Amino acid sequence: MPAPHEPTAAEAAALLLAVDASERVRGTTSPNPPVGAVILDAHGVVAGVGATAPAGGPHAEVAALRAAGERARGGTAVVTLEPCNHHGRTGPCSAALLAAGVTRVLFAAADPNPQAAGGADTLRAAGVEVIAGFGADDVESGPLRAWLHRQRTGRAHVTWKFAASLDGRSAAADGTSQWITGPQARARVHVQRAKLDAIVVGTGTVLADDPWLTARNPDGTLAAHQPLRVVVGQRPIPAGAKVLDDAAPTLVLRTRDPREVLDALADRPDVLLEGGPHLAGAFLAAGLVDRVLAFLSPVLLGAGASAVEDAGVGTIGQALRFHRESVETVGDDLLLSLTPNFPSSSEKNHTQGAD
Amino acid sequence: MPAPHEPTAAEAAALLLAVDASERVRGTTSPNPPVGAVILDAHGVVAGVGATAPAGGPHAEVAALRAAGERARGGTAVVTLEPCNHHGRTGPCSAALLAAGVTRVLFAAADPNPQAAGGADTLRAAGVEVIAGFGADDVESGPLRAWLHRQRTGRAHVTWKFAASLDGRSAAADGTSQWITGPQARARVHVQRAKLDAIVVGTGTVLADDPWLTARNPDGTLAAHQPLRVVVGQRPIPAGAKVLDDAAPTLVLRTRDPREVLDALADRPDVLLEGGPHLAGAFLAAGLVDRVLAFLSPVLLGAGASAVEDAGVGTIGQALRFHRESVETVGDDLLLSLTPNFPSSSEKNHTQGAD
Repeated sequence: MPAPHEPTAAEAAALLLAVDASERVRGTTSPNPPVGAVILDAHGVVAGVGATAPAGGPHAEVAALRAAGERARGGTAVVTLEPCNHHGRTGPCSAALLAAGVTRVLFAAADPNPQAAGGADTLRAAGVEVIAGFGADDVESGPLRAWLHRQRTGRAHVTWKFAASLDGRSAAADGTSQWITGPQARARVHVQRAKLDAIVVGTGTVLADDPWLTARNPDGTLAAHQPLRVVVGQRPIPAGAKVLDDAAPTLVLRTRDPREVLDALADRPDVLLEGGPHLAGAFLAAGLVDRVLAFLSPVLLGAGASAVEDAGVGTIGQALRFHRESVETVGDDLLLSLTPNFPSSSEKNHTQGAD
Repeated sequence: MPAPHEPTAAEAAALLLAVDASERVRGTTSPNPPVGAVILDAHGVVAGVGATAPAGGPHAEVAALRAAGERARGGTAVVTLEPCNHHGRTGPCSAALLAAGVTRVLFAAADPNPQAAGGADTLRAAGVEVIAGFGADDVESGPLRAWLHRQRTGRAHVTWKFAASLDGRSAAADGTSQWITGPQARARVHVQRAKLDAIVVGTGTVLADDPWLTARNPDGTLAAHQPLRVVVGQRPIPAGAKVLDDAAPTLVLRTRDPREVLDALADRPDVLLEGGPHLAGAFLAAGLVDRVLAFLSPVLLGAGASAVEDAGVGTIGQALRFHRESVETVGDDLLLSLTPNFPSSSEKNHTQGAD
């Protein structure tokens, strides 16, 4: 069999469409991954778009094939994840693609789950052209990031988000903090929340700020999907706390041990940690923060609570250093996305001292 | 007389050359401004480049005219500042340009000094084409920024530079701080120092860090120009402090009142404030910081001294808000340049509270 031809411009556009479809279902598909799929007909025209339905519903490929109907015959599938090969609650997607007469398949991320993997091999064995890794970087750092992380490590992907002044403070001397960042940054937070599986805060934050922790649309109404609200810590929170209302489910955990918190969230791969400073420090010290989203406002306070306390750093050689994934301006604020660039806690004794 | 024709590409290139020439003499020309000048011959070819010499020496235009010689006749002068019109220690530059036969003059910034201004009018009256404001934004926010500020306000232009972790700390819990930022950021600091009139630190910084406060070349040798080192505060500093050596002049001021410090630096328009946190807070609270340069490292510390303390902010409505001039990456670090966007201290009572 000759090697597959290079991806076409139509296939590159289909990948963007598939990523967009997967982003729209992020937060609603657990325990399945949020996948997007596009079927192009034999002429390269979009015939169907699909995304993972909630658990028990069809996978993305099946949804896209249904939309494409007979136009899938002789066509191409562009998918963000390797088509599955196993009989779960739905049949294997590799078989569905073959039955529909698809002759070419491009996918981004390989399936790390040994039970589900093998779809690419099945398709190739049946004579289908297969290109693996098509757009893998964007998908693996984007819509499938948290799910792949959970598949690989067995625990949730934790993003710690904080908003602070340039001198690292999340509140002024009197505790006021509304608002350090601007409206564009706050709107961005709500878009992110609507795609999450869970938001975690400490009891201290509930007692101090009484946050609602819901995802809101720009007009203030509740977004269609709400992440699980998780309050962790030993202190009791008042029965009238906003976080206990019925706008979204809430889990109260009587621990602030990061590992116990993540164990309780085993079926929620995409977790956002929002504060306060000591809870963030505990997660950082435990090596359990996978990404930091820092909203930095062009503001100085000179007093007030820091964004993070007690992260296990005693001297500069132990500083928690990060790799900069991206930096962008959001209104007047900066948004940095960072990933850890430091050894896990067990290796810390070997880091260098000051020079 | 017809209106002057639009600036040519050769004149735009000459402006870049003039700015570059002025940057090379920044820090060496006080009390004169660091000006750059380029003479183009009648064909638009560069005939001479000049910059302000130390006080008593020739102005930029005269230096450029000397280099151009007879080629200035029928040519064009491109200057970063309006040619002076007064007899100081050197003759007026407007007269020198006329004597050399220059027939067209483009300059960036108008001279705010009433004694020196009027050069443009003198040139126009003699039949020379004059274009004012050519490249004014770049020059006024660049090489002439501090000098223009002093001309307009009567006091030095103060840049507060700090380097901090993303949680706003300038040292770890045990006081170690070498190094929070990377080598590229530290090299940038030395390039900046070599162009300054003065560097100000508090006695606390001298006692804690024993800094040298010199401008060094990349190979570690001393730069040709060294700014005045200024140590302010009530505490005595040890006779063996590095800042007291003979690598550069040093001024020790027994005050930490920002206005008294600036009064003592009246003939030094370009001042860099380097720390520590309380001295920075005092300058900020007094409304005496004109620009903030923030080097932010992708590091978290979770403990240790903040970059700024006691800036006079008690509640979020009093937050010191800044306009973002620029943001760039310097190695792994971010460099933000910010200008104040808040009322002076006398207006502070009218700022809004939290909402």
